Amino acid sequence: MLPAQLLAARSLALARSHRREAGPVTFDFLVSRGPVADATSSTAWLKAMIDVEAALGQAWAEVLDAPAEVSRAIAGACTPEGVEVDAVFAAAELGGNPVIPLVPLLRERAGPQAAEYIHRGTTSQDILDTAAMLVVRRSSDLVRDRLLAVRAATVELGRRHGSAPMIGRTLLQHAVPTTFGAVVERWLAGVDSARAEIGRVDAELPLQLGGPVGDRASFEGQFGAIVAALAARLTLVAPPTSWHTQRAPVAAVAGAWGLAAAAIGSVALDIVLLAQSDVGELAEIAEGAGGSSSMAHKHNPIAAVCARAAVMQTPGLVATLLDAAGGHELERAAGAWHAEWPALNRLLLATAAAVDWLGISLDRLVVDEARMATNLRRSQEDE
Amino acid sequence: MLPAQLLAARSLALARSHRREAGPVTFDFLVSRGPVADATSSTAWLKAMIDVEAALGQAWAEVLDAPAEVSRAIAGACTPEGVEVDAVFAAAELGGNPVIPLVPLLRERAGPQAAEYIHRGTTSQDILDTAAMLVVRRSSDLVRDRLLAVRAATVELGRRHGSAPMIGRTLLQHAVPTTFGAVVERWLAGVDSARAEIGRVDAELPLQLGGPVGDRASFEGQFGAIVAALAARLTLVAPPTSWHTQRAPVAAVAGAWGLAAAAIGSVALDIVLLAQSDVGELAEIAEGAGGSSSMAHKHNPIAAVCARAAVMQTPGLVATLLDAAGGHELERAAGAWHAEWPALNRLLLATAAAVDWLGISLDRLVVDEARMATNLRRSQEDE
Amino acid sequence: MLPAQLLAARSLALARSHRREAGPVTFDFLVSRGPVADATSSTAWLKAMIDVEAALGQAWAEVLDAPAEVSRAIAGACTPEGVEVDAVFAAAELGGNPVIPLVPLLRERAGPQAAEYIHRGTTSQDILDTAAMLVVRRSSDLVRDRLLAVRAATVELGRRHGSAPMIGRTLLQHAVPTTFGAVVERWLAGVDSARAEIGRVDAELPLQLGGPVGDRASFEGQFGAIVAALAARLTLVAPPTSWHTQRAPVAAVAGAWGLAAAAIGSVALDIVLLAQSDVGELAEIAEGAGGSSSMAHKHNPIAAVCARAAVMQTPGLVATLLDAAGGHELERAAGAWHAEWPALNRLLLATAAAVDWLGISLDRLVVDEARMATNLRRSQEDE
Amino acid sequence: MLPAQLLAARSLALARSHRREAGPVTFDFLVSRGPVADATSSTAWLKAMIDVEAALGQAWAEVLDAPAEVSRAIAGACTPEGVEVDAVFAAAELGGNPVIPLVPLLRERAGPQAAEYIHRGTTSQDILDTAAMLVVRRSSDLVRDRLLAVRAATVELGRRHGSAPMIGRTLLQHAVPTTFGAVVERWLAGVDSARAEIGRVDAELPLQLGGPVGDRASFEGQFGAIVAALAARLTLVAPPTSWHTQRAPVAAVAGAWGLAAAAIGSVALDIVLLAQSDVGELAEIAEGAGGSSSMAHKHNPIAAVCARAAVMQTPGLVATLLDAAGGHELERAAGAWHAEWPALNRLLLATAAAVDWLGISLDRLVVDEARMATNLRRSQEDE
Repeated sequence: MLPAQLLAARSLALARSHRREAGPVTFDFLVSRGPVADATSSTAWLKAMIDVEAALGQAWAEVLDAPAEVSRAIAGACTPEGVEVDAVFAAAELGGNPVIPLVPLLRERAGPQAAEYIHRGTTSQDILDTAAMLVVRRSSDLVRDRLLAVRAATVELGRRHGSAPMIGRTLLQHAVPTTFGAVVERWLAGVDSARAEIGRVDAELPLQLGGPVGDRASFEGQFGAIVAALAARLTLVAPPTSWHTQRAPVAAVAGAWGLAAAAIGSVALDIVLLAQSDVGELAEIAEGAGGSSSMAHKHNPIAAVCARAAVMQTPGLVATLLDAAGGHELERAAGAWHAEWPALNRLLLATAAAVDWLGISLDRLVVDEARMATNLRRSQEDE
Repeated sequence: MLPAQLLAARSLALARSHRREAGPVTFDFLVSRGPVADATSSTAWLKAMIDVEAALGQAWAEVLDAPAEVSRAIAGACTPEGVEVDAVFAAAELGGNPVIPLVPLLRERAGPQAAEYIHRGTTSQDILDTAAMLVVRRSSDLVRDRLLAVRAATVELGRRHGSAPMIGRTLLQHAVPTTFGAVVERWLAGVDSARAEIGRVDAELPLQLGGPVGDRASFEGQFGAIVAALAARLTLVAPPTSWHTQRAPVAAVAGAWGLAAAAIGSVALDIVLLAQSDVGELAEIAEGAGGSSSMAHKHNPIAAVCARAAVMQTPGLVATLLDAAGGHELERAAGAWHAEWPALNRLLLATAAAVDWLGISLDRLVVDEARMATNLRRSQEDE
Repeated sequence: MLPAQLLAARSLALARSHRREAGPVTFDFLVSRGPVADATSSTAWLKAMIDVEAALGQAWAEVLDAPAEVSRAIAGACTPEGVEVDAVFAAAELGGNPVIPLVPLLRERAGPQAAEYIHRGTTSQDILDTAAMLVVRRSSDLVRDRLLAVRAATVELGRRHGSAPMIGRTLLQHAVPTTFGAVVERWLAGVDSARAEIGRVDAELPLQLGGPVGDRASFEGQFGAIVAALAARLTLVAPPTSWHTQRAPVAAVAGAWGLAAAAIGSVALDIVLLAQSDVGELAEIAEGAGGSSSMAHKHNPIAAVCARAAVMQTPGLVATLLDAAGGHELERAAGAWHAEWPALNRLLLATAAAVDWLGISLDRLVVDEARMATNLRRSQEDE
Repeated sequence: MLPAQLLAARSLALARSHRREAGPVTFDFLVSRGPVADATSSTAWLKAMIDVEAALGQAWAEVLDAPAEVSRAIAGACTPEGVEVDAVFAAAELGGNPVIPLVPLLRERAGPQAAEYIHRGTTSQDILDTAAMLVVRRSSDLVRDRLLAVRAATVELGRRHGSAPMIGRTLLQHAVPTTFGAVVERWLAGVDSARAEIGRVDAELPLQLGGPVGDRASFEGQFGAIVAALAARLTLVAPPTSWHTQRAPVAAVAGAWGLAAAAIGSVALDIVLLAQSDVGELAEIAEGAGGSSSMAHKHNPIAAVCARAAVMQTPGLVATLLDAAGGHELERAAGAWHAEWPALNRLLLATAAAVDWLGISLDRLVVDEARMATNLRRSQEDE
């Protein structure tokens, strides 16, 4: 590992001198927004990696009964303060992951004595996989909170308009009468299944700890103690085996978030369809946008439209993650691992954007019970 | 509903007279094989639909305290015996689903008294969605059984060769020594996660019962009793709400089977890589195939290769199912529902084929401990 | 190659004795239909492989100036007559492809003298890849013919109703007036781009000829003559290089057919939307289905719905093919090649089904100009 | 359109006062890099939209014979200088696209006389679709240039090492001897097909001009002149019809870039496989990285690994774009249009990153002819 670290340190210095800017923000304003954009940023990933190194360093200090100053030095070194995120990621390109340049930097900051405890027994993948789970955790918390608010808005809609009769539509044809309450109940089921599924996987997010080839042989006989301490510090599950190339945890996140996004997508589609000019039973009335309830059907339901656009990103991203999961080679993948990072990040981001847009749509939503009655009457006259 | 049923009966008669053959078997010999090919066939789907109608008819007979001959007539009518599968599916194309021609046929067979109890209160989607869950259930049982056998073969491999030292490979580069036992442990984790995930979803497979627009309003005040009886008869979960256009159950199957396939894929890839001529640590030696252990490395690991080919079908199918799940319209989808059937079926089939091929590969697998030792020594000499 | 052939012959005999039935037809009645189901069947693939072997054998006979009886023997041997398709595919599972058992069978039928000319210089992949292009060719022809008919139906719709004014709808909101002619023009553009794109790729479909490792070294100095003769006989393009693991031709088919399916999907969605009860400007009136033009909006536009369901299968299949294309290893892929077959076949099938269903929908389509006028008037009153 | 513009102006003012930062850079350092990251940034999209508005304004000025000061005012107003990109995109969220706030801003800068010529006859989608094609154009140019350099590096590899004999590998098993030249020829075919396919589509990139509902009725009888002038100014093709909801041009970009990425992926995989420690025929030796050619096999081929990771993003993105293409509604899509932007951008970005990484890999590539000879000899001894 040593030559790689020297190399990393050198490349970090190089990157510093050629400092590049934070880089262009890719055009994806509809998808990248809200607090999950922060939670999935390079800065957030860097912080997560440092958090893992900090917890691991402290776990070793504890297990090896290190003097208190070691623990203090680890704490002082393993903090995002003063770590130049752009430099780390520029240097990361040399070895293909950002842990490689990060470790010598943290060790240098910790000083020679504490340095021995940092990154001990582990490999880049341990840090990065665990950091990924922390990023998912943080995003889960944010999205589930937002989903709670979305739920409350949905419940309120049902409370106010649930008893309104309306025509049910199957294959977009008038079928038999139902109530708006049945629609709201369906939306609640969607919001709840999204929240439950993200929560289910969140409760099982595992840390990764396996060492260079994932067989847990590099922990000086202390694997049990270290993994327990790490799990406790990071509030992650200690998995029964390494998942360095068996990616069930990543695939589980993919499936759950994909399901959540789909659940949101179907609600957003209902809104778009009921807001059609030809239907006019719902409308998004944006605050300050000057619309009126009497011309509710003239407003584009743009928040629901944006929710749909975000949802549509997700099946492809889930496919990318599953495809990668099925292609990890032996003790560390040669590409399929690296492929997970942008796809996972985008999935968190797009799902969060979808939830956020749906919340905006619901806040703007106006229910036109009179139009529901008119459409229902018209339907019955046609029979 | 009545005109549609008449139409269906007429089209069924029409289809009978123009009888088409069972149709060509699409070229997919690697993917469509084993008992799950039977469990996902048109015949199996037809049987599942009839099973649902039978259970529902009996539930109504019970709840409405029908005379015993009604129950007997339902049982006599709702059986695959004598139902011409080709005719039903030919007729199905007129209305877009096979329940439409099936119901009048079953009612006719049951006679006028029992006919009132058949399909009562429900809609095609109730029957087809519930039948889909029965098809998943049957496929789950078969795949999980096969996974148990695959597990046993994996354990046996570990028992015989687990202690063999070998070089660990990260990014396909020699890293540090490990043992074949660590590889086997990883494979077991893959097989177990596949089985656990399919099992988790299997235990939650819900029936569908909602009536024409999914709001449960068409059950004559007997919804609770009917749904409970149906759940008990079919051993499916009675869901808290309809999922006619909120497709969490389908998305959950997609995610779980996609995860399972990926888990299998990574094991198969390990086998392919360790069986490379340049590595030679594993080989598939097919019984009766004339190979010899001394030239183990000359054999294509074709079962592992086929497992990979099957796995590669799955991410796209999961994406199709999630995409459809996010696009269901109002009270019944105009395409996204119908899109689920072939994709779901293919996902079950491809995953099952992957598991089957992996089992064949493991049965053929020969471990060359001497070559492991040679490679390990060579690796250490290079340092 | 010899031991493999012996093996294949033995396994063929084995398969014959354990004859399995044609196998279950997977439940996908909406997607697998029409003449492309025949063109992509196991029987069709077998015929295509035999056609390639026949053309190749004749090319060698020509180039090597073989006696006339050799040519006759090749012709007599290389015909689907008497080749048991089930037995070949059962045997195919041993080596992972159906060419392996087919070659010794054809050679045996040709007799010892002609046998030397059969499969000479080539490898399974040459035969199977070229056969795949023949299957695409046949499917292209069928789909393009059907698209011509769909085009004619669309033109006729425009001729009869193109001048009808209607409200334009953006984001499903009433925007400004347009005419049904503009809608028809858009549909024509879709149909034409589907046909053009399939045609563009069809004109470039290449044969594959490279020998065991694709480097064309196994053709006894006759590569140029053989490839030219083969291209002429099969009406395929002689490519500048082998594409055994650079799969641009397969990826091109994937992209073109995926584009074609999407073009059809958008037309089908327009029909579904204009046929909504709340819009009522179009309706599918099935012949013999008992509907009336006065209640046109009460009919499910089921053919358009099925077209959409078929289209929705395709993005995932294109992804599978592109994913496979990016993962071919060295001189022959260990899974990614085999993964192409079912995915390619399904893409042809689903796209063809979509086109077919759209044609059925257009044939059933009734345009309600009065309703268009009413909706337009309503829209203007709302302003 | 007027109230929307007022609204946009108001929201722009609002956005200015609540100025948000450029926003976090999502963690995707492997995928987002090089000049295409700039060419697909928010800044680049904004510039492209303004370029379209400028060209369109000048076209109208020309056609309507406007005084020279109008032309000067348009030129002065329609420039990225002084347009606050963050403010525009923040405001864009209100209407769902960035053209809505941009137009009143440009008109205000142009002054009342020239304002009449700006955005005349068009709609947001005309501007944004045409801008998208300009972004694709710019990215195409950059990627094709890079591919030329990659080609040259590949040719040079062949020139130096093409005659080296090596063992061919099928299904990763030793097959028959070939040469490194055959490998290089295959790579060239991949690089060339990527470049040709991107170039083919590039030459057909169309502008979009159709007006509010795409029927070209809003151009005051001047459509022909305007579209010709616009095509000339932007060097884009004037399409025969609008493609506002028939997305063949976007699907064509998706297919072509997806093919290109796959072609690169297969080359990168070859490098990773030939660089395996157990093969050792290639190695990436990074400049300044301290490796030695004698231990060539100890280096992770990290650039090829990163190329693979980038390639793996693309099939899912192509699926997203095709899925969206099949789901555009009537005269403007309610989500499927908006869904294109992030997916298209990511596809350009990921493909470009893959090409870039492959170039880096080839620059670092060291061919070990001696090891090729050793492996070949070993292979022949095994027979």
